[in-house]
Amino acid sequence: MRSDGHRRAPGAGGSSTTDLVERAASALQALRDRRPRVHCITNTVSQPIVANGLLSLGAVPSLTSSLDEVADFAARADALVINLGTLEADRRDAIRIAMDAARGAGRPVVLDPVFVEVSPRRLAFARELLALQPALVRLNRGELDGLAGEKAADPGGFAQAQGTVVALTGAEDLVHDGSRVARSAHGHHLLATVTASGCLASAMAGAFLTVSDTPFEAAVAALLTLAIAGERAGGRTEGPGSFAAALLDELYGLRPAHLLSGARLS
Amino acid sequence: MRSDGHRRAPGAGGSSTTDLVERAASALQALRDRRPRVHCITNTVSQPIVANGLLSLGAVPSLTSSLDEVADFAARADALVINLGTLEADRRDAIRIAMDAARGAGRPVVLDPVFVEVSPRRLAFARELLALQPALVRLNRGELDGLAGEKAADPGGFAQAQGTVVALTGAEDLVHDGSRVARSAHGHHLLATVTASGCLASAMAGAFLTVSDTPFEAAVAALLTLAIAGERAGGRTEGPGSFAAALLDELYGLRPAHLLSGARLS
Amino acid sequence: MRSDGHRRAPGAGGSSTTDLVERAASALQALRDRRPRVHCITNTVSQPIVANGLLSLGAVPSLTSSLDEVADFAARADALVINLGTLEADRRDAIRIAMDAARGAGRPVVLDPVFVEVSPRRLAFARELLALQPALVRLNRGELDGLAGEKAADPGGFAQAQGTVVALTGAEDLVHDGSRVARSAHGHHLLATVTASGCLASAMAGAFLTVSDTPFEAAVAALLTLAIAGERAGGRTEGPGSFAAALLDELYGLRPAHLLSGARLS
Repeated sequence: MRSDGHRRAPGAGGSSTTDLVERAASALQALRDRRPRVHCITNTVSQPIVANGLLSLGAVPSLTSSLDEVADFAARADALVINLGTLEADRRDAIRIAMDAARGAGRPVVLDPVFVEVSPRRLAFARELLALQPALVRLNRGELDGLAGEKAADPGGFAQAQGTVVALTGAEDLVHDGSRVARSAHGHHLLATVTASGCLASAMAGAFLTVSDTPFEAAVAALLTLAIAGERAGGRTEGPGSFAAALLDELYGLRPAHLLSGARLS
Repeated sequence: MRSDGHRRAPGAGGSSTTDLVERAASALQALRDRRPRVHCITNTVSQPIVANGLLSLGAVPSLTSSLDEVADFAARADALVINLGTLEADRRDAIRIAMDAARGAGRPVVLDPVFVEVSPRRLAFARELLALQPALVRLNRGELDGLAGEKAADPGGFAQAQGTVVALTGAEDLVHDGSRVARSAHGHHLLATVTASGCLASAMAGAFLTVSDTPFEAAVAALLTLAIAGERAGGRTEGPGSFAAALLDELYGLRPAHLLSGARLS
Repeated sequence: MRSDGHRRAPGAGGSSTTDLVERAASALQALRDRRPRVHCITNTVSQPIVANGLLSLGAVPSLTSSLDEVADFAARADALVINLGTLEADRRDAIRIAMDAARGAGRPVVLDPVFVEVSPRRLAFARELLALQPALVRLNRGELDGLAGEKAADPGGFAQAQGTVVALTGAEDLVHDGSRVARSAHGHHLLATVTASGCLASAMAGAFLTVSDTPFEAAVAALLTLAIAGERAGGRTEGPGSFAAALLDELYGLRPAHLLSGARLS
């Protein structure tokens, strides 16, 4: 899993995307061997799928946002995931405490600025957190534009300006670290009908941060794993309910070989 | 979708119930074309099924009850749904703020007074909200009796007295606006084994309020859609877990034609 | 369901374990006839599976932790289940109020000290509650060691010292009341991949407390019912998502005869 970035050109080359897929496959195996604990401060609607998705993937979730406890949980976890959905006042303080604890303990942090474009106060808080330079930010197009303060914001420019990695999900997934970019058109339209599937992507990115060399590689591995599991689930279900159950089954059953044989990046 | 109430007798006539079914079918199509955002302040246990049910139906859920954010979310949503389950103190304030914002923006409101008969304080709060005349109230028999303060309370009398529409769910569903009444015996006994299926009915009523001429028609369309999806799901499952998944699949796959051919109202 | 403990040796004898299985089967039937309401103050991630699991089993869940309401709900419920997951400050006060109300009304209480070994403050609170002698404590090995303050703590010694019944879940389930012990190796490895399946075990123990003669028998009945439902679900599914749905189906469909024919205790 050592990076060989100095020997190869970063970016779009064929060998480089093959490399990324191989690293994703190795990271998936490493994740299952290590079983990292990922502390997620996440909205209540997303908690069941986030926790079940992490367990299915092979990680261990913890979820408290109690002001008294969150520092202990975050400092002892392997990664911290901050999700801004249904952001009650207490949770804002819990997030600040948890970020301090995780940074103090040298743990990587993922930020998921859910619906940041709808509420000015949530936007202000998201920017406060962004200034602390989380390892990566997972968001959709509306949220990126909201954070960047402009329409059709450039993910690469944003990543560079903020000193973070952008994991942008949608019909096409894109990861950008300011210089390198990876794109994937994997996935399935039913993913958008399962509430909090984006929150799950963020939590999975947190899990992969614990076993990847760089946030860029972690984001690619997480999005690829979720998208390919989604494709496989979508191939044998007809609607959102059975798809959600099949998605967890596929995350659980997915092997590194499935990534190696099935992943297409550009 | 314009009402033609002046040309037809309200109430029990055959053509009138056919009308209601046709309007429900048109509303279902309109809902999918419009994809309304429905803001739900709802108890934490119900959040996953409410969010997934709305997505499966074709609407977009948002769920925050943060005091700082809820006015922005409610005012910009197409409808507001207030559910009194697991009613923490903060959520009570959030509900007041959200109702003000929704009313100020001219958005319709649904009230779901969960378990109001168990707690005197919750009852007092439900009555405070009822005085603000939500477009419709979705409840079960115990909750209606609790709110009305008497056993076997008359839904029509209650609707008229409170200036709202009553959507009463149970073995038989009933909608009453004080003068018109519609009854449906659709549904499936497994619906009662899925937690928060009543909360989902309320949320769906909120979605239909955005595309129906009257709250009465919206309530009929919502209960009929859920009940027929439930019948279809129950026809191919054996227990609560597989039923819940199948229910979301059926909500997603249900077409206006299924209502037109299958619905029986009286 | 009367205990005949005076006629038989407690503990490991063959007739005694047969007895326990028969009592579990009778309790399952009694639970479905009675439909007890179980009030659960439980972490938000566990709420859907706890509520759906109780409904599938034949009990009625309620879940509020509102400071204003929780005394009414707990005093009128048939049992109270206290779960320490995601323990916000308000919930701590709610738990104190609910325990007072339940004890005042003579209702049995289950304590589930989730992740108590991770946070010193949660541990202190768990010990405060333990001093109030809940009827039973449901936990895993890490939590038992955390509570007992030593590695590989002895469940029997702990039960005796604390005046409670220990229901310890893991690869092998064990129930100990300080003198009697029952062990079961039923279950399925996928149970560990479903978030909050331990919380569900605790909630089910609460339901069985309302129909069993002793907390020891209630704990045995609850763990056995869940483990056998899990075995049956695991026999026809391939991953965590379909397993979770099948688990609810099996809880719903499980009959006393399934326990009588399938249960192996030692």
